[in-house]
Amino acid sequence: MQKIVKSRSKKRGLPPGSLVHIGEKKRETAIISLIEYSENSFEKRQLMPDELPGLNYNSETTKWLNVEGLNEIDVLAKIGEVLDIHPLVMEDILNTDQRPKIEVYDNYMYISAKMLSFDNEDEDNEFIIEQVSFILGSNYIVSFSERDTEVFEPVMKRLEQGLSRARKLNTDYLVYCLLDIIVDDYFDILENLSETIETAEDEMVSHTTEKTLLTINKLKRQVLFLHKAVWPLRDVLSSLERGESSLIKESTDIYIRDLYDHVIQVMDTTETLRDILSGMMDVYLSSASNRMNEIMKVLTIISTVFIPLSFIVGVYGMNIQNMPELNWYWMYPVLWLVMILIALTMLLYFKKKKWW
Amino acid sequence: MQKIVKSRSKKRGLPPGSLVHIGEKKRETAIISLIEYSENSFEKRQLMPDELPGLNYNSETTKWLNVEGLNEIDVLAKIGEVLDIHPLVMEDILNTDQRPKIEVYDNYMYISAKMLSFDNEDEDNEFIIEQVSFILGSNYIVSFSERDTEVFEPVMKRLEQGLSRARKLNTDYLVYCLLDIIVDDYFDILENLSETIETAEDEMVSHTTEKTLLTINKLKRQVLFLHKAVWPLRDVLSSLERGESSLIKESTDIYIRDLYDHVIQVMDTTETLRDILSGMMDVYLSSASNRMNEIMKVLTIISTVFIPLSFIVGVYGMNIQNMPELNWYWMYPVLWLVMILIALTMLLYFKKKKWW
Amino acid sequence: MQKIVKSRSKKRGLPPGSLVHIGEKKRETAIISLIEYSENSFEKRQLMPDELPGLNYNSETTKWLNVEGLNEIDVLAKIGEVLDIHPLVMEDILNTDQRPKIEVYDNYMYISAKMLSFDNEDEDNEFIIEQVSFILGSNYIVSFSERDTEVFEPVMKRLEQGLSRARKLNTDYLVYCLLDIIVDDYFDILENLSETIETAEDEMVSHTTEKTLLTINKLKRQVLFLHKAVWPLRDVLSSLERGESSLIKESTDIYIRDLYDHVIQVMDTTETLRDILSGMMDVYLSSASNRMNEIMKVLTIISTVFIPLSFIVGVYGMNIQNMPELNWYWMYPVLWLVMILIALTMLLYFKKKKWW
Amino acid sequence: MQKIVKSRSKKRGLPPGSLVHIGEKKRETAIISLIEYSENSFEKRQLMPDELPGLNYNSETTKWLNVEGLNEIDVLAKIGEVLDIHPLVMEDILNTDQRPKIEVYDNYMYISAKMLSFDNEDEDNEFIIEQVSFILGSNYIVSFSERDTEVFEPVMKRLEQGLSRARKLNTDYLVYCLLDIIVDDYFDILENLSETIETAEDEMVSHTTEKTLLTINKLKRQVLFLHKAVWPLRDVLSSLERGESSLIKESTDIYIRDLYDHVIQVMDTTETLRDILSGMMDVYLSSASNRMNEIMKVLTIISTVFIPLSFIVGVYGMNIQNMPELNWYWMYPVLWLVMILIALTMLLYFKKKKWW
Amino acid sequence: MQKIVKSRSKKRGLPPGSLVHIGEKKRETAIISLIEYSENSFEKRQLMPDELPGLNYNSETTKWLNVEGLNEIDVLAKIGEVLDIHPLVMEDILNTDQRPKIEVYDNYMYISAKMLSFDNEDEDNEFIIEQVSFILGSNYIVSFSERDTEVFEPVMKRLEQGLSRARKLNTDYLVYCLLDIIVDDYFDILENLSETIETAEDEMVSHTTEKTLLTINKLKRQVLFLHKAVWPLRDVLSSLERGESSLIKESTDIYIRDLYDHVIQVMDTTETLRDILSGMMDVYLSSASNRMNEIMKVLTIISTVFIPLSFIVGVYGMNIQNMPELNWYWMYPVLWLVMILIALTMLLYFKKKKWW
Repeated sequence: MQKIVKSRSKKRGLPPGSLVHIGEKKRETAIISLIEYSENSFEKRQLMPDELPGLNYNSETTKWLNVEGLNEIDVLAKIGEVLDIHPLVMEDILNTDQRPKIEVYDNYMYISAKMLSFDNEDEDNEFIIEQVSFILGSNYIVSFSERDTEVFEPVMKRLEQGLSRARKLNTDYLVYCLLDIIVDDYFDILENLSETIETAEDEMVSHTTEKTLLTINKLKRQVLFLHKAVWPLRDVLSSLERGESSLIKESTDIYIRDLYDHVIQVMDTTETLRDILSGMMDVYLSSASNRMNEIMKVLTIISTVFIPLSFIVGVYGMNIQNMPELNWYWMYPVLWLVMILIALTMLLYFKKKKWW
Repeated sequence: MQKIVKSRSKKRGLPPGSLVHIGEKKRETAIISLIEYSENSFEKRQLMPDELPGLNYNSETTKWLNVEGLNEIDVLAKIGEVLDIHPLVMEDILNTDQRPKIEVYDNYMYISAKMLSFDNEDEDNEFIIEQVSFILGSNYIVSFSERDTEVFEPVMKRLEQGLSRARKLNTDYLVYCLLDIIVDDYFDILENLSETIETAEDEMVSHTTEKTLLTINKLKRQVLFLHKAVWPLRDVLSSLERGESSLIKESTDIYIRDLYDHVIQVMDTTETLRDILSGMMDVYLSSASNRMNEIMKVLTIISTVFIPLSFIVGVYGMNIQNMPELNWYWMYPVLWLVMILIALTMLLYFKKKKWW
Repeated sequence: MQKIVKSRSKKRGLPPGSLVHIGEKKRETAIISLIEYSENSFEKRQLMPDELPGLNYNSETTKWLNVEGLNEIDVLAKIGEVLDIHPLVMEDILNTDQRPKIEVYDNYMYISAKMLSFDNEDEDNEFIIEQVSFILGSNYIVSFSERDTEVFEPVMKRLEQGLSRARKLNTDYLVYCLLDIIVDDYFDILENLSETIETAEDEMVSHTTEKTLLTINKLKRQVLFLHKAVWPLRDVLSSLERGESSLIKESTDIYIRDLYDHVIQVMDTTETLRDILSGMMDVYLSSASNRMNEIMKVLTIISTVFIPLSFIVGVYGMNIQNMPELNWYWMYPVLWLVMILIALTMLLYFKKKKWW
Repeated sequence: MQKIVKSRSKKRGLPPGSLVHIGEKKRETAIISLIEYSENSFEKRQLMPDELPGLNYNSETTKWLNVEGLNEIDVLAKIGEVLDIHPLVMEDILNTDQRPKIEVYDNYMYISAKMLSFDNEDEDNEFIIEQVSFILGSNYIVSFSERDTEVFEPVMKRLEQGLSRARKLNTDYLVYCLLDIIVDDYFDILENLSETIETAEDEMVSHTTEKTLLTINKLKRQVLFLHKAVWPLRDVLSSLERGESSLIKESTDIYIRDLYDHVIQVMDTTETLRDILSGMMDVYLSSASNRMNEIMKVLTIISTVFIPLSFIVGVYGMNIQNMPELNWYWMYPVLWLVMILIALTMLLYFKKKKWW
Repeated sequence: MQKIVKSRSKKRGLPPGSLVHIGEKKRETAIISLIEYSENSFEKRQLMPDELPGLNYNSETTKWLNVEGLNEIDVLAKIGEVLDIHPLVMEDILNTDQRPKIEVYDNYMYISAKMLSFDNEDEDNEFIIEQVSFILGSNYIVSFSERDTEVFEPVMKRLEQGLSRARKLNTDYLVYCLLDIIVDDYFDILENLSETIETAEDEMVSHTTEKTLLTINKLKRQVLFLHKAVWPLRDVLSSLERGESSLIKESTDIYIRDLYDHVIQVMDTTETLRDILSGMMDVYLSSASNRMNEIMKVLTIISTVFIPLSFIVGVYGMNIQNMPELNWYWMYPVLWLVMILIALTMLLYFKKKKWW
């Protein structure tokens, strides 16, 4: 299950700006890919850390450095140095336990978001939350991810095929495309969650088990984590749109507004799921107790019918001398008749009162 | 039952502005009607997609293009092209799972809202949520609906009869009329919901079944969906009224403010229904458990009265030699008397203590 | 019981500004009274609808037209026409299901509020909500009420006696007086509700019945309706005070602020009542279940004490040949002793454990 | 117990500004004390109502008129007249059921607050809420209290001893001192409440009774009343600090900000108490039901062990002819052994399953 | 357990600015350490109270006075006097029960925060809340703590080693470092709390005891206290960042914003923990009642199966003369067979109905 808080004990007492990776170790080494493109060219290749300082960051082409894996502190420190990035930003990139945020510096912008995906090997079917960070310069983007960036594949393909608007536009449009694809995945998560909810609901009507309760609680927590990952993204996008930096061209605003609308919709649906789950909890609790009550009622009715009868047969089991009925010839069948009548009367009375 | 989230998996990875219909397929082909009117003329006819580019969009008359059905992507793409509408807007028109919104462009406005109606064939008596979109230009309106626009009939009739103010006024007044009729239907929904609630309440006092719980839960969810459909419309209207675009004449402001008041009232009533439903839930849970407790109490009282009596008759069923009472002549009737007295005392005691 | 939503199905599809009465029909005909006064004169008489156009609305005197009953659409339409009131305002006056609101036009203001009163014939002791509307011009007021305006009697008397400030001041002070008397009645309602609550609380400590639950729920709903009626009045008054219209003289501001404070206090108390009611609900539920548990416990203790005893007497009722005790001379009294001892031990044990 | 709403029925229909005392009558007559001081002088004496007009309100000295008791309407009306106070303010002073508020007039300010204190004679240990009002002029203060103003004693003493800053400073500092001492008492109330809560918590762990529930509910209500009394004071102080009137010197601002911080802290703690009480409610409900369940479980286990044994002895009590075991010599002791084994097996099984 | 409210009864009636220590006495005497450093020098020594006035507060070096212990009022008063600090600030330093706050004066700033730490000796594993106050001047800082400031050790070491940026920068960067280290400890607390929560959750699935309830409640309260300590710090930092004083250099802003982000994250996580705890409460209550119900059901099933059998053997224990079955040869084995069949049928029926 998702950890609620990631350990940052390694970090205690260190001066601000110290580079320490906070989070689960997801891969050993960092892979750096360089995608370099202009309207007419496209090149993609793997980069060795040594090549970083040698790159020409002022060329006409747009550069996208994609860094996969956050555990090689040295490599990351070098990137920060080469691009002259503030140590606090580098610290934030490594701290995977923080909220999505945006920070505007003179020459670049720092944006972080949460990437949600399903781990196919996880039998609990819970989604994984990973942090993605972007450094957005005027003609370069650096993206950092915890494990890999399969999720960015479609954008790379569109760039390669040269059909995309992205080839013609600036880095701000590219960062929009990358954020857009991350947000698209939120809808996947929502779809998956809502299907699980609908299945759980159908099950609940037919038969409730204790497992239902745990399922509802697990879903509740997932919705909680989703909310926590998406909510701050709203502020990030709204501050992107407000255009606090010249890095965001006005022509990109409309796209970011659209993305903002998507995030609002994710929030809305998350809210709805939360309300539905809390309604389900009520129904679960109530129907679990109803079922139990029904059972106890039937059991109690059975006992209640037999206890008076047991008393009657007890009476005729007494050894008192002078009990005239005992010797009456038809006593036995008449007694049976009386007892059956009593039992039926009781059952009918309970029935009439709608007790079962 | 209403889907909580509509599948948009077809859309994943596509570049922004790709036209993909998100939502249930509600009709195969798109029907385009053209209503063209001025103060003195009125014409209504069906339009073939091919005729679209040939229309004179700068004529004196006001044009209302009514598009029913969103599954013929080609036709919709053509409309977008002819009227020079931004691809993101076309994407929004096709995405029926989004919140009501307004977007102001240089020459036109995009407004989307949710249309609520009861499907008569649905035995669950749940309302259907459909998206309606409007493109509002200076002398034309395009309206898009998922299935059909029976709901707009009264407006068309008023236009045809020439008695309406709409004939004399601009497209902004027409869009107001169309939104007004959509909001009017919300009151229908509210009326229907509140009647169902009142019926459920009356039932609840007389007898609660497990069905009551499911009814309350279903009503809760419907109120939730209603809230979700209406809430963002508030922002849409308030931003319409604030007159961010020159397309809305000042003379229409008063009408839009009135419409805004209606939406606020719908919200208010939705809030009230929600509070009432949660109160009903409490009463339901409490009275269900009360009823159960009453039954268990009566059953237990019956057992409790007979158990001591059974003990007594057990005593006189013992085979111990030296039990003097056994041979006493009046033993049997006296014993009956004693037992009846014991039973009555217990019942009276329970009665006095108000246990039944 | 108060309807949650009033039917407006008659209105569907009609053009905006259509005059349709929404709400319960409370009287057949409309009665129009004219109160005309200046600092030195006072006249009150009933007015026929035909006299309406003939009145001199520009005279020095202040005119107060009091219209009781909203079902004679013709008469109301005539008033609207004579005073040149916007059709949407007339529509609002007739729609008794809307929230209190204020609308400022060039020559007049529209204010609507909710009048709460107890219907003495209602055995449920619920208050009735009626809409009162005011048209405030520079030297006239028109007030519209659903049934009658007994509530305004004290103001009329003060005007007649000539002692009141109102005689000397403008229409804005008069409208303040009328709103003030409406708000005063809210305190009556609050007083009545809080007394009912206190009675219910006292009852609850001594004995809870299922009726208590329904009472709490009914009170909750009444507080809800009260809240709904009063909350928007806050905005009405705050916008009156902000003096958005020249119709409100600065000298009246202090009175309106005072009225605003009263409304805030009503809101505050409503909030308190709501909290108290939800606390009562908790106590009710808990003490109902406590009482039930106490009963079940006592019943179960009785059974538990007798069941082992029944087993013992069962043992000596066996027909096994070789049971030496059976023939022992003191067996019977000793057995009784043993059984009494067992019963007492059990009871003492339960007592010591504080089980009863 | 504290009344939720004070009756104001005497006031209905009266013109605004009518002086009617709303609240409990706490003393018959009003006592007026005059404290007159400058940097070098101090005088304190009782004042007859007749002396009021004769006072020189423009002298160099600072005057503090302390009025105890609000039931002598005549005297209060005279004060209002002499100092030229707006009738609505006088009305507010008499209406002890209103929220703390501040009103700024040209020459004076009106401030009202709630004074909380414990009534030693009250066995319920509930605090009393009384209204204190201040009229703050440039060189005089009038304070009005419902019963007496023992609470102001320390301020008076400090003034008399001449050591206090107050002697040198203006009326605004004096009003701060008086408000400060009122807020100090809120901390007393909080301390007392939190001690009661802690005691109740300790009790709850060891044994819960129905009284616990009522205690929690009573505490909840007290916290509610405290919140209601303190919350609006926040606005009063923040508007005092914002310096909307020239009566508040800039040098006093820092003191008022400090007072404001105290009020915020009272609010904070009130919030905390509320959360703690609602947590206690949960624990109470849960542990009450746990305890009950434990008891029922033990009782049921006793019955469950004896019922099969009773069946067995019942079998050998049958009068069927051909029951071979009956005549077996060791039958009786073996049967006992078997029954003891059955009982032990059941108890062990229940024990192993952790049922007790 | 943490006191909810600290007693301030000693303070009642004292004039504002009176120095009284509010809070638990944590050490007898105050220890003052002086750390004096510039870019090239570093000195740390203990200071006697008498040396305070003699220090040169205008020298080039930066001074950090670290005061541990708040019970020697004299010493604290002297510090206040020497540095010319407002009496209300000194009062705030001593009042350890107040919210974190910031106050800007002409020459200095007052900042207070809550320091959270685990007391190793506390077996309840609850954290301790202590107040830390800072007086920030242009070239000096005074820090006040209740007990000791082990927590500041790493900062001191960094200063001593001369590697830190702090040596080169102003007092504002130093105060940031100190606040940073305090906030770092909040993450420790969160980590610890979330681990306790995860342990409690695991326990809950396997077996719930009454202790679980108390653990959840204790955790809830700790989260409450954490929230209360951290929430106001948000305002402190945001007002620090907004740079309302020239004491905060612009270059420090970025660090304070980073710190602000950390606090927001602590708040976020606190919120999440709260939601998770309330979910756990639901699961606990539900599974406790489920477990109980399961037990009662099994016990009741046992009784229910034996009660009809007991009735049957009761029948054949009757002493009625004419009971033909009694003499039938195979009666006894057949009766056993019948009874076993009845019992099996009942058990199968219950099984089929999924009653166990």
